[in-house]
Amino acid sequence: MVRPPVASALFPHPMSTHQSVKVAIVGASGYSGEELVRLLLNHPRAELVAVTSRQYAGQSVAQVFPRFASHPAARELKFSEPDAAVLAKQAQLVFLALPHGVAAEYAVPLNQQGVRVIDLSADFRLRSADVYQEFYAHEHPAPGLLAQAVYGLPEVYRARIKDALLIASPGCYPTSVLLPVLPLLRAGLIKPDGIIADSMSGVSGAGRKAELAYLFCECNESVRPYGLPKHRHLSEIEQELSLAAGRDVVIQFTPHLIPVNRGILTTLYLAPAKHFKTSAEMAELSDSITRCYADAYANEPFVRVLAGSALPDTKNVVGTNMIEIAWRLDPRTGRLIVMSAEDNIVKGASGQAVQSMNIACGFSETAGLV
Amino acid sequence: MVRPPVASALFPHPMSTHQSVKVAIVGASGYSGEELVRLLLNHPRAELVAVTSRQYAGQSVAQVFPRFASHPAARELKFSEPDAAVLAKQAQLVFLALPHGVAAEYAVPLNQQGVRVIDLSADFRLRSADVYQEFYAHEHPAPGLLAQAVYGLPEVYRARIKDALLIASPGCYPTSVLLPVLPLLRAGLIKPDGIIADSMSGVSGAGRKAELAYLFCECNESVRPYGLPKHRHLSEIEQELSLAAGRDVVIQFTPHLIPVNRGILTTLYLAPAKHFKTSAEMAELSDSITRCYADAYANEPFVRVLAGSALPDTKNVVGTNMIEIAWRLDPRTGRLIVMSAEDNIVKGASGQAVQSMNIACGFSETAGLV
Amino acid sequence: MVRPPVASALFPHPMSTHQSVKVAIVGASGYSGEELVRLLLNHPRAELVAVTSRQYAGQSVAQVFPRFASHPAARELKFSEPDAAVLAKQAQLVFLALPHGVAAEYAVPLNQQGVRVIDLSADFRLRSADVYQEFYAHEHPAPGLLAQAVYGLPEVYRARIKDALLIASPGCYPTSVLLPVLPLLRAGLIKPDGIIADSMSGVSGAGRKAELAYLFCECNESVRPYGLPKHRHLSEIEQELSLAAGRDVVIQFTPHLIPVNRGILTTLYLAPAKHFKTSAEMAELSDSITRCYADAYANEPFVRVLAGSALPDTKNVVGTNMIEIAWRLDPRTGRLIVMSAEDNIVKGASGQAVQSMNIACGFSETAGLV
Amino acid sequence: MVRPPVASALFPHPMSTHQSVKVAIVGASGYSGEELVRLLLNHPRAELVAVTSRQYAGQSVAQVFPRFASHPAARELKFSEPDAAVLAKQAQLVFLALPHGVAAEYAVPLNQQGVRVIDLSADFRLRSADVYQEFYAHEHPAPGLLAQAVYGLPEVYRARIKDALLIASPGCYPTSVLLPVLPLLRAGLIKPDGIIADSMSGVSGAGRKAELAYLFCECNESVRPYGLPKHRHLSEIEQELSLAAGRDVVIQFTPHLIPVNRGILTTLYLAPAKHFKTSAEMAELSDSITRCYADAYANEPFVRVLAGSALPDTKNVVGTNMIEIAWRLDPRTGRLIVMSAEDNIVKGASGQAVQSMNIACGFSETAGLV
Repeated sequence: MVRPPVASALFPHPMSTHQSVKVAIVGASGYSGEELVRLLLNHPRAELVAVTSRQYAGQSVAQVFPRFASHPAARELKFSEPDAAVLAKQAQLVFLALPHGVAAEYAVPLNQQGVRVIDLSADFRLRSADVYQEFYAHEHPAPGLLAQAVYGLPEVYRARIKDALLIASPGCYPTSVLLPVLPLLRAGLIKPDGIIADSMSGVSGAGRKAELAYLFCECNESVRPYGLPKHRHLSEIEQELSLAAGRDVVIQFTPHLIPVNRGILTTLYLAPAKHFKTSAEMAELSDSITRCYADAYANEPFVRVLAGSALPDTKNVVGTNMIEIAWRLDPRTGRLIVMSAEDNIVKGASGQAVQSMNIACGFSETAGLV
Repeated sequence: MVRPPVASALFPHPMSTHQSVKVAIVGASGYSGEELVRLLLNHPRAELVAVTSRQYAGQSVAQVFPRFASHPAARELKFSEPDAAVLAKQAQLVFLALPHGVAAEYAVPLNQQGVRVIDLSADFRLRSADVYQEFYAHEHPAPGLLAQAVYGLPEVYRARIKDALLIASPGCYPTSVLLPVLPLLRAGLIKPDGIIADSMSGVSGAGRKAELAYLFCECNESVRPYGLPKHRHLSEIEQELSLAAGRDVVIQFTPHLIPVNRGILTTLYLAPAKHFKTSAEMAELSDSITRCYADAYANEPFVRVLAGSALPDTKNVVGTNMIEIAWRLDPRTGRLIVMSAEDNIVKGASGQAVQSMNIACGFSETAGLV
Repeated sequence: MVRPPVASALFPHPMSTHQSVKVAIVGASGYSGEELVRLLLNHPRAELVAVTSRQYAGQSVAQVFPRFASHPAARELKFSEPDAAVLAKQAQLVFLALPHGVAAEYAVPLNQQGVRVIDLSADFRLRSADVYQEFYAHEHPAPGLLAQAVYGLPEVYRARIKDALLIASPGCYPTSVLLPVLPLLRAGLIKPDGIIADSMSGVSGAGRKAELAYLFCECNESVRPYGLPKHRHLSEIEQELSLAAGRDVVIQFTPHLIPVNRGILTTLYLAPAKHFKTSAEMAELSDSITRCYADAYANEPFVRVLAGSALPDTKNVVGTNMIEIAWRLDPRTGRLIVMSAEDNIVKGASGQAVQSMNIACGFSETAGLV
Repeated sequence: MVRPPVASALFPHPMSTHQSVKVAIVGASGYSGEELVRLLLNHPRAELVAVTSRQYAGQSVAQVFPRFASHPAARELKFSEPDAAVLAKQAQLVFLALPHGVAAEYAVPLNQQGVRVIDLSADFRLRSADVYQEFYAHEHPAPGLLAQAVYGLPEVYRARIKDALLIASPGCYPTSVLLPVLPLLRAGLIKPDGIIADSMSGVSGAGRKAELAYLFCECNESVRPYGLPKHRHLSEIEQELSLAAGRDVVIQFTPHLIPVNRGILTTLYLAPAKHFKTSAEMAELSDSITRCYADAYANEPFVRVLAGSALPDTKNVVGTNMIEIAWRLDPRTGRLIVMSAEDNIVKGASGQAVQSMNIACGFSETAGLV
């Protein structure tokens, strides 16, 4: 394999204030693709030069997504057939919003041409091709790229995202689990064993595909679990938790489908490393957790740790790149309960991908995201 | 064509108190079919002996519709492939819950075997095969049956439904328009010209089919008009209004899709035959309308004309076979506004079909419907 | 205190086939009250003789609840001011659908007059007045009645409900937790420690009260936890689990509010008493759980243990008195996950109360409930 | 009355590129107020210096509206008690998001101090105090200001908004009716008689107030008409239509409440001035309408006239300041049907108010709105 050029050669950091980056989206007709279109059309430093979709090739962005029709660029830009060679000439950075298994087809040639890739599929999130095969039930299409791919969780991998040529943007559920748990695990405040994550997701998480199960009448006035006990997202969650814990971590994860368009609410059941019996012990542990989250997130623009009696509510984060986190110690059970709320399509997908782009291009990390 | 046997020979009226009728449903896997299953499983005089569905053949009703699993019959009864010859041996009355264009395939042989048919499709609602072709864009599959089919609106055709071998159950929108308008038109209280019907329907009206347009995220937080200005249901609405008026009636009809599972709310804009300028004239007209509706519906079990300040609300009728009607005179414009609310799947489809069955079989008209 | 007459003297078991019971509802204007009205209007053996509501006194049931207007009884029956002395003369059995803290005011005099009471509030669910005070933050208003009150969970206390004069109908969340957990606990299949219940409830659970937090726009497109870590329902859940386990049980419980009218989905995280490592051990444990649930519920009319790949979905139980249960063993974590779905207002409240009435009055347990 | 200073003396047009305007919001805790906060926090030329609310005085914007917590200004800015004298010192322009009847209390003193006011209530929309009293059932609180107030519909009154000291921002329904109808009326393409507007609105239109009728369970799975036949918004609709027609116009208007947070869909039934019988006549009329809308709106940034088969859908405009318009000629009835979709809180309220601010302050009209 031809060694790809070093990314930093292409994007000197920081880019000059007036310079913008030419970007493209492959697979722009799904919900994540549409949100990428929205964010990039409004981004002060990005120029959206190409969007691809086999189904809509030839139509303008404004025709396919009437809600963007007031943007002049949306009226001019037309969907094209995806073609890596063409994209490599048009764009400096390409977002892949494709189903797992097909991203490699674009990522490999684009990277070889020195084009940065931010992949929103699961294809480059795992370090092990074997784990990929176990969870995704097919051979990994480009195992050679796994070593160089960077997991695009800015709060953890900001430094490596800066120079990455291939960024694997995290899944929606993993983001909602990892951001609340990682600091606690790294600080040794919780045990790595016995972690339970119970999540509820809006229907956009199922993608824009014509299936009976996601019809309005099948989802409205309904709530149901699915995909348990071995949902695919477990693979990347456990990978990242294990790296933080310095040992293998296996968790319990149950996703549920609820009738909202967007939003994930995750409730986590954790065991503090130290028992707290007296109120002094409880106060001390509370202080440690408060400090731990403050150290981790006080300066993070997109993580909000709630204080006082406030609890997360997806309606407070939908449409934003923010994740809300709150926690409670339960002296009756000795457990720590942590809850998070995010927009599954923004912080859980496209917003986080743009955040990575901002870092990779040397822009302000919040550019186009508030 | 073999002349079908006379229905009354088969079902003497009234059936004896302890006798029940064997019924079948062809196409039982859609929303109307499912509601027929619900109503017939609970019907005191009907025995559901067969349900057909190519897709689910071999599975039990309880497997396909878990919400009925507590009915012993639902656990035993299995979906079968539709076969008119078999059905003719099993059932005395067959409901057809099929798309338009294919009902004739079952209606013709079943009727020939003396089996009563209640068809929920549009295929036998129109008296003219030409009008059918104009609105449904294909030739009528069995024009010979049109003359003997009875339009299954009990409040209008009760006497004819009694002995009908082929009952064409009305559409959901037509029911919501005809019941409020027909009495006024017959009484000469409104002009037949210039009638406008503006309707909102829940998403179940689109049927249980995997199309992008009816995904949860495409319907939730959305309201949109569709199918205007010449929706197919206009054909049967105008046929029945014309019959009532004794002259051709052409109306304006605009349906809208709103994010509820069930329910149709129709608002009608009508021109009173007499102008009302003074408050005495308005009071006189009010009295006439009140009397007209009382004459038409005071004894109808499934029509509720609201009094006082009450206005229709779909949540008051969903799950029932009731239609709510309210009206207001507007002295500023000289118009009469009439509003109706119904459950599109019950009074607008399956409930009304069961009401016709009750009449046809000599049961109490409300049997299994309250 | 005057000793109340023995219930069985009043209601010989079984009541003769044609006899019906005169019932009343105190506090009939909330969501549980409304559902009681619906169930009792349609009940073959109950005659609804009184409904009370300070707010609606003087109005007919049909005026307050237009959806029942087709029932002749709903048009005749008028709401009255609640008065225990009057009720005692009218009714043989009274349902109390009141907020906690005020039920005693009616339960005490009614019981003293020999009138059976089924209370839907929390006031008589706990055996200990101290626990009541801990969780409900006020002194128990009638501690003397606690000993004779029967917890109205028919699957557990059927025999005692038969003769009870005071039935404390369980809370919605407790029902969704207890029915799945109790058989496993009694059979020793799970450890009593470390139980976690994660629940999602529709908004009707908050009651029909004008509060900002439950406005449409505050709940729609929102999901949020609340009331943790010490929700009031914990008190009755832990009481019943402790009785089943023969020792004190403390659990973790997190309720969430989701945008549906009705339905509770509870996901339970349980630790099997025996580890299962080999697939043989897993198969053995599976068999034990299957048998345990079959023993407990195979003959229960309102508990459905799902087989195969089916998982609970609230839309399959809404409007019914059924609870759906499914379970999965996770060999990766060693846990047993059990999920339940119920209608919070039916099996979680009014339906279950009617089920108790059926038992208490010697009716078929499913009368008026399917 | 003291003559207020001339606005143009205060805000020279255009403001210099780097100058921003200090703005305040009185009554910022309702849905329109909250949306103003969102728009003004993100506005490139506005500095939000004060927000008032009796209820939330002392709390920060971030506390009251967690969704804005990522804005540094939202964390710093605290709600204060409303006080016109204080506001006059803080702000150059004040938005009033108050119920009708109380806006005058702030508008009068602010205007007298030379502070521009954009009022979102109905108080200054009508030119006649008598009409106000007829529709709002109380005497107008400041009839002296009516003559100088400008109706803040930018597409019609842009020139006057530029120098207005008091801008009366239009109602949500009026915007959805006026923008589609005014150009046709002014061009003489439709008759001024017999206009019908049938509207559906999301629940946010009812305001953030704790009333039973707007609880989640009362609105979800419900659709209902209300406020007919003489809704208050008729007064301003008819005033503006009459001005455009040069004669008195009386219309029919029926609003409906549907279960969405935001969005208004209005369907208009209009009579073309000329009959069209032949297809040539229909084509000619079509051309005239197309030209009429193009003349009116081709350069308007917030009006989108749909072409081809597209129809308005509220989900395409929610969250934006855009109104979508489509129309159809019906050769069967001779009518012109025009449909519009807008976000009732943005183009129907706060977005339009900011659009007026942009004009009044000499900013780009789209500043902060795309």
